[in-house]
Amino acid sequence: MLKFSCDYMEGAHPHILNRLSTINLEKNDGYGMDEYTESARAKLRIMCGIPDAEVHFLMGGTQTNTIVLDSILRFNQGVLAPTTGHINVHEAGAIEGCGHKVVPMKAANGKIDILALERHLHLLKVECDVVGWEHYVAPRVLYVSFPSEYGSLYTLDELRQLRTICDKYDLYMFVDGARLGYGLASPYCDVSLSDMAQLCDVFYLGGTKVGALFGEAVVVTNPELTIPRGLIKQRGAMLAKGWLLGIQFDTLLTSPTDDFTDTLYYKISRNAVEMAMMLREGMVAKGYEMHIDSPTNQQFFIVDNARLPELSRKVGFDSFAAYDEYHTVIRFCTSWATTVTQVDALLEVV
Amino acid sequence: MLKFSCDYMEGAHPHILNRLSTINLEKNDGYGMDEYTESARAKLRIMCGIPDAEVHFLMGGTQTNTIVLDSILRFNQGVLAPTTGHINVHEAGAIEGCGHKVVPMKAANGKIDILALERHLHLLKVECDVVGWEHYVAPRVLYVSFPSEYGSLYTLDELRQLRTICDKYDLYMFVDGARLGYGLASPYCDVSLSDMAQLCDVFYLGGTKVGALFGEAVVVTNPELTIPRGLIKQRGAMLAKGWLLGIQFDTLLTSPTDDFTDTLYYKISRNAVEMAMMLREGMVAKGYEMHIDSPTNQQFFIVDNARLPELSRKVGFDSFAAYDEYHTVIRFCTSWATTVTQVDALLEVV
Amino acid sequence: MLKFSCDYMEGAHPHILNRLSTINLEKNDGYGMDEYTESARAKLRIMCGIPDAEVHFLMGGTQTNTIVLDSILRFNQGVLAPTTGHINVHEAGAIEGCGHKVVPMKAANGKIDILALERHLHLLKVECDVVGWEHYVAPRVLYVSFPSEYGSLYTLDELRQLRTICDKYDLYMFVDGARLGYGLASPYCDVSLSDMAQLCDVFYLGGTKVGALFGEAVVVTNPELTIPRGLIKQRGAMLAKGWLLGIQFDTLLTSPTDDFTDTLYYKISRNAVEMAMMLREGMVAKGYEMHIDSPTNQQFFIVDNARLPELSRKVGFDSFAAYDEYHTVIRFCTSWATTVTQVDALLEVV
Amino acid sequence: MLKFSCDYMEGAHPHILNRLSTINLEKNDGYGMDEYTESARAKLRIMCGIPDAEVHFLMGGTQTNTIVLDSILRFNQGVLAPTTGHINVHEAGAIEGCGHKVVPMKAANGKIDILALERHLHLLKVECDVVGWEHYVAPRVLYVSFPSEYGSLYTLDELRQLRTICDKYDLYMFVDGARLGYGLASPYCDVSLSDMAQLCDVFYLGGTKVGALFGEAVVVTNPELTIPRGLIKQRGAMLAKGWLLGIQFDTLLTSPTDDFTDTLYYKISRNAVEMAMMLREGMVAKGYEMHIDSPTNQQFFIVDNARLPELSRKVGFDSFAAYDEYHTVIRFCTSWATTVTQVDALLEVV
Repeated sequence: MLKFSCDYMEGAHPHILNRLSTINLEKNDGYGMDEYTESARAKLRIMCGIPDAEVHFLMGGTQTNTIVLDSILRFNQGVLAPTTGHINVHEAGAIEGCGHKVVPMKAANGKIDILALERHLHLLKVECDVVGWEHYVAPRVLYVSFPSEYGSLYTLDELRQLRTICDKYDLYMFVDGARLGYGLASPYCDVSLSDMAQLCDVFYLGGTKVGALFGEAVVVTNPELTIPRGLIKQRGAMLAKGWLLGIQFDTLLTSPTDDFTDTLYYKISRNAVEMAMMLREGMVAKGYEMHIDSPTNQQFFIVDNARLPELSRKVGFDSFAAYDEYHTVIRFCTSWATTVTQVDALLEVV
Repeated sequence: MLKFSCDYMEGAHPHILNRLSTINLEKNDGYGMDEYTESARAKLRIMCGIPDAEVHFLMGGTQTNTIVLDSILRFNQGVLAPTTGHINVHEAGAIEGCGHKVVPMKAANGKIDILALERHLHLLKVECDVVGWEHYVAPRVLYVSFPSEYGSLYTLDELRQLRTICDKYDLYMFVDGARLGYGLASPYCDVSLSDMAQLCDVFYLGGTKVGALFGEAVVVTNPELTIPRGLIKQRGAMLAKGWLLGIQFDTLLTSPTDDFTDTLYYKISRNAVEMAMMLREGMVAKGYEMHIDSPTNQQFFIVDNARLPELSRKVGFDSFAAYDEYHTVIRFCTSWATTVTQVDALLEVV
Repeated sequence: MLKFSCDYMEGAHPHILNRLSTINLEKNDGYGMDEYTESARAKLRIMCGIPDAEVHFLMGGTQTNTIVLDSILRFNQGVLAPTTGHINVHEAGAIEGCGHKVVPMKAANGKIDILALERHLHLLKVECDVVGWEHYVAPRVLYVSFPSEYGSLYTLDELRQLRTICDKYDLYMFVDGARLGYGLASPYCDVSLSDMAQLCDVFYLGGTKVGALFGEAVVVTNPELTIPRGLIKQRGAMLAKGWLLGIQFDTLLTSPTDDFTDTLYYKISRNAVEMAMMLREGMVAKGYEMHIDSPTNQQFFIVDNARLPELSRKVGFDSFAAYDEYHTVIRFCTSWATTVTQVDALLEVV
Repeated sequence: MLKFSCDYMEGAHPHILNRLSTINLEKNDGYGMDEYTESARAKLRIMCGIPDAEVHFLMGGTQTNTIVLDSILRFNQGVLAPTTGHINVHEAGAIEGCGHKVVPMKAANGKIDILALERHLHLLKVECDVVGWEHYVAPRVLYVSFPSEYGSLYTLDELRQLRTICDKYDLYMFVDGARLGYGLASPYCDVSLSDMAQLCDVFYLGGTKVGALFGEAVVVTNPELTIPRGLIKQRGAMLAKGWLLGIQFDTLLTSPTDDFTDTLYYKISRNAVEMAMMLREGMVAKGYEMHIDSPTNQQFFIVDNARLPELSRKVGFDSFAAYDEYHTVIRFCTSWATTVTQVDALLEVV
């Protein structure tokens, strides 16, 4: 059956499997102390333009969000996130499970409402400067996803506004880049990887959804912050055979031309976005109504509930949300592995 | 100076101090295993009409909310609370500090929006029954305050609606009664203590704000639930000299007529509400605008910001919230100890 | 019945009850922001000889140990404690409940084995400097009780040795002084309060067992450390009527001669120790065998199991531990409230 | 260089890589809901002889220990473990990080001292039945590793004794089988997989050290217990591409003869043990002194410190512990991938 329900249904890009086979019987040091991991770290530092950035490779998004936030937050500090943010709705309370409150902020189409955010911080500060912060959750981190859970992107100008707010209210800015490649590769994106690295304090570049078997590359760009290896170990997130992560990212970040704007990671990300744009055009041409105008690999359409049973016999999709009593928002995802043939087949049957 | 800023500014009702003096050099068993505590437990069980209710005495509201919720919630389970609920905004993230998410629900005047609550639970269930609850925070407890943080009260009918929703969605219902006396004593309240005990699974009757030096009496009415003493100890909430709590509640729950509708707790609660009504009438007569029509000991007025500096030189109040750019909502609290003289003096100066 | 089973069976010194009565209807600011608390803080700073020490008043020992350690420890850091230390055996896993490991160290008569401690730290460092600390619990705090749970005292020289070890291995030194008065008041003690304050990084002076209704006064002497009020609130340990703690310690730390070596706290502590010495002499004269030679208010004797039933009909004591198959170690505690008459009565019946 | 320092230096058995390649572009459902994972679960249930056992696949040992124990322990409950147990010394305080105390028990050669364990439980019960369990950590789980961290094995009779103790004191028995294959494959082992499954309440069969890229298969044999998927997700331990775990175990548990005593897992485990025995004989023949007589893939020898520098230039090993001032215990590990050639080479150079 055709499956477009998410972007982590396939294994890894073949280059990755090849390299894993090649070094399979080598004896490597464990816990991320091997040469492949070191090589991947070095490449990321160059790509970000931050020579001394701290880089860690972790296994999945929830794990990464948890460890990054747990490394920063203490006591009554909390993290602000859009209401629709992954940490607020789709991680089973993982951040709270480590003792930290996620404070939901108004959002639209997956993006935080910047004015509402600033107003919230202003009013809270006015109030707490009088009665004392100790009775409240004190915001310490701003979390946003890029692309958002709705496929939308912040513009460079919006990211700069968020940075300004973070500076004003003494917040760290953390970008969840589980689908970062699919954002950077969008023709509608005016943000580069090095912009991202310059603007936020810590972010990650996702592998699980972008060509790897699994893995997220966390880049700590603010030298005030560190993610202790003791925390990674304690949270059960230190892979014994750490080189499995290192070699995957080393492969994804390889460029045939030694130009880091031309890595495998970008190349396969572009494919996903191109397939998404093709899918979108085809759907619109067929009369489907877009729920939001997503410029990345996730595409959302409003479908009459009466059509859902038949549709779901033909193609796998994600029932994203109820639109109203009679309509549902469905999501199609493309990935690095999606082919023109698959999109054509989808457009044939819908 | 006149002080109406909160309801925990005085010590304890004199009867309590007297009894503490009387038994001061007695040697009592520790940790709540003494006869005074047992007597207080027995009285509460009778008042609630639940002969085998589990009763614990704890020291403060945040501690009590934390321990009650921590005794129930596990794994990815969370607690639903009105956006304005104490656990959501005024407890420094204490519930999250124990690993559990507080999921904010739409509220008005401090009370949860019942329709919005039901709709949220319905949609979440539809979604999670498909994709699996493991990715979400699964609601397990409904938390409401009675009276609410805005002084408002749920009617008996509203509590029954909440109970019905809890039954339908398999939630426990937990009522924060930090000011329970001031609710039950209101002429506008149609809920009795035994209604409360019958309708919810666990609640507490506050002493800190209602005549005691400190102390909250937790009543677990649902035999499925228990608050292990090992949890109380582990959370640093087991008072060595537990009889200090027991004798305070034993005194508050004493009635001269052996009629439990006539206890000291109710008597002093009525005083606070009467003083609040007198204060309200006086303020309205002077032209102040009520922010909400509160039937309990907290009263809220909208004041022109220009008048605040002078007002705050004359009387202590709580700057509750910004109303708009030019006005502030201020709160006056009465308590068990408030006198007619004090209210008159307040009305004189405002 | 005669009761010597613990030192927290009575209420508070009458001076404390008197002052509580005197200010009962005053309206005080909450959460420890009142003048009585500030006065008690000031006195403690003078007594310790540390003008800018941070001082907090908390409600009980387990709560205090938990909050102090939780304010310091992060990630894979842990606390070293004697095997017999209160946090290791008598606090229901409270420290672990906050996420931190208590690493037990060899002890004798309640005191940590200094040589074994140093050897442990040396070997661990050798090992971890090679394989990486991230796989281990990294010691960050040394916890000792003064007096210990067995009534024993560290000499000034021993405390200095511990300090040297802490400096060498980069540990903070935390002294649990739940019974500090009973240590300092012992004729066998060569340590002063200001020695204690100089030698450790944080300690507390207990009130619950030494004349107060409840309360522990935490003194943070190392300016690198701080106990955030947000943590105290989050852990449910911030008393709404904080002045109840402040005025108790303000009373205990009052001296009729303005000489802080002559405070009520010391005076009543001396009484407990004198009564304990009298009890000890009397017991030994009657042929009882001391289990250890305790110089403070806890006294331990080895009793034939066959005598226990009769003895426990006459006097309350603590069955401390099995000595061998046929004998039990029992503990008698005196307190600030113990009288000569009570000790005489005890010696009469045993 | 020759490397014998641990048993997780190579990738995966080639059969696993082959299957991963074969299904690489298949679109599989995530989170362990795929057919490969279901097939692996079914095989394990048959091998254990427990048709309705609950089976989960997790990513590593620390993660697995944490999640299993966190799923069982609540409040003031703790886990008993040998002093040398992995959770007590090598997991960065992961169990405490989830709020639960690891209570160390006397051990010898990596195995818990059964008499000391029983005596501890007996004395604790005598004490707590009097003063109340709420002040203590109440043992709820017994943790042992099979093989132990020293390569040693419990006999079937010893496991039965542990089971009896667990039944008597109401403990669950949890076996850490990170190297289970290397235990079961030892000629000195009289325990079968189904014995293990029958005797304990939950255990795991390790893949990371036994032929997989990564992965541990947890088998919950006691129907009273369950590991909620919501906990796995919350702890960041739910792999998006869960089939990566499923297919690895499905491959390891495949038998050419359809006889589950003849799976790839056993076959490659036997190789490791045979290589270890060959290594041991060779070392002893060369005059090396064994530290303990290990029947599994870890071998320990006592080496003169003066010889260490030269030795470590020739071969990678683990400096396990100081033996005395002049000698060190070193560890050599074989694995599923170790060859006769490698062992010969080792014996050549030592």
